[in-house]
Amino acid sequence: MGRKYISDAVIRRLPRYYRYLGELLDNHITRISSGELSQRMGLTASQVRQDLNHFGEFGQQGYGYNVELLHREVARILGIDQIHNIIIIGVGHLGQALVNYTNFERRGFYVVALFDIDENIIGQTIGGKIVRPVEELKDFIKENAVDIGVLTIPKKEAVQMANILVESGVKGIWNFASVDLALSDPSVIVEDVHLSDSLMRLSYKLSNQN
Amino acid sequence: MGRKYISDAVIRRLPRYYRYLGELLDNHITRISSGELSQRMGLTASQVRQDLNHFGEFGQQGYGYNVELLHREVARILGIDQIHNIIIIGVGHLGQALVNYTNFERRGFYVVALFDIDENIIGQTIGGKIVRPVEELKDFIKENAVDIGVLTIPKKEAVQMANILVESGVKGIWNFASVDLALSDPSVIVEDVHLSDSLMRLSYKLSNQN
Repeated sequence: MGRKYISDAVIRRLPRYYRYLGELLDNHITRISSGELSQRMGLTASQVRQDLNHFGEFGQQGYGYNVELLHREVARILGIDQIHNIIIIGVGHLGQALVNYTNFERRGFYVVALFDIDENIIGQTIGGKIVRPVEELKDFIKENAVDIGVLTIPKKEAVQMANILVESGVKGIWNFASVDLALSDPSVIVEDVHLSDSLMRLSYKLSNQN
Repeated sequence: MGRKYISDAVIRRLPRYYRYLGELLDNHITRISSGELSQRMGLTASQVRQDLNHFGEFGQQGYGYNVELLHREVARILGIDQIHNIIIIGVGHLGQALVNYTNFERRGFYVVALFDIDENIIGQTIGGKIVRPVEELKDFIKENAVDIGVLTIPKKEAVQMANILVESGVKGIWNFASVDLALSDPSVIVEDVHLSDSLMRLSYKLSNQN
């Protein structure tokens, strides 16, 4: 959409800006300088200014940022001013944790359906939604507007399910399975949460501390 | 420990090497060239060689890597050749998902205790472990070898609990609360899993696709 290249590091920081600005709003702080915002976030003031300058002119020289305005702008940049319909595949503990996470709805992510392969869970109602058999996955996606598929299943099944999601037209996959998905359609966006990798990084840092 | 500086990007890739080498072993592949390994991982061969050269001389010119040996070496570098005792604070769905994740034990991460503030959960047995009241947290850590505290609680309680963990001598915190912890002891290592941030990054990429 004609927007210039934004580095991964900046994209990684964007949700943090959104979180910190939200906390400022909760504390009724309406205006903040780049210096103060950067200090809270553990960045430098020039980094904050550079990051935000990628997206427009937000601050006013000498007056700092209007917190509410900037919060709303970052939401728009992140695309969370729009509604995203989500389906969750795998309603184990992790899937249930996500169903019940109210913060997601507040940011426009609505869980519209749950799927599982386990006969004991299919038909149950969790978080107000009935658990459907995965056999209905394709038809559900084709008949409903689904933006994001969440994979909270073991890696063996994740690859197959990811392919079904892609074939059915889902545009984004939030992948919790411990595998890097190689998709047939490279335009589908995958965001991984590899919990084991994260725990191993913690272990690495504990082992290699000075 | 005299080890040279290793960049965050390399540290981020280390668990992936471990995963891919594990998959090769599962498929009875005993030897692999840097070119083939890099292709599977979506890296360049020279990046693979550079990454691994930070830690020693593993490959043999023209013969590639001995998969089993390299897998074991990466495990050692990651510190997962050692046992890490873990406690989980917050036994909701997310906490329970982690208790039941068998992959962690296979990599030497043992859940030794569970804590919660909810009277309805305290005293229950989950994954073979009894849920204790958080009031016992300090004493438990002082009387037992605890390496890592896992925070699967809302952000309001997370800050206070993190401070208790630090005061009690825990060296690492795996933080799932949606807050960046500012700890009194900077030598304590925090690894964050900010699920909301991850979902917002996915949303950003969906909104800014070309």
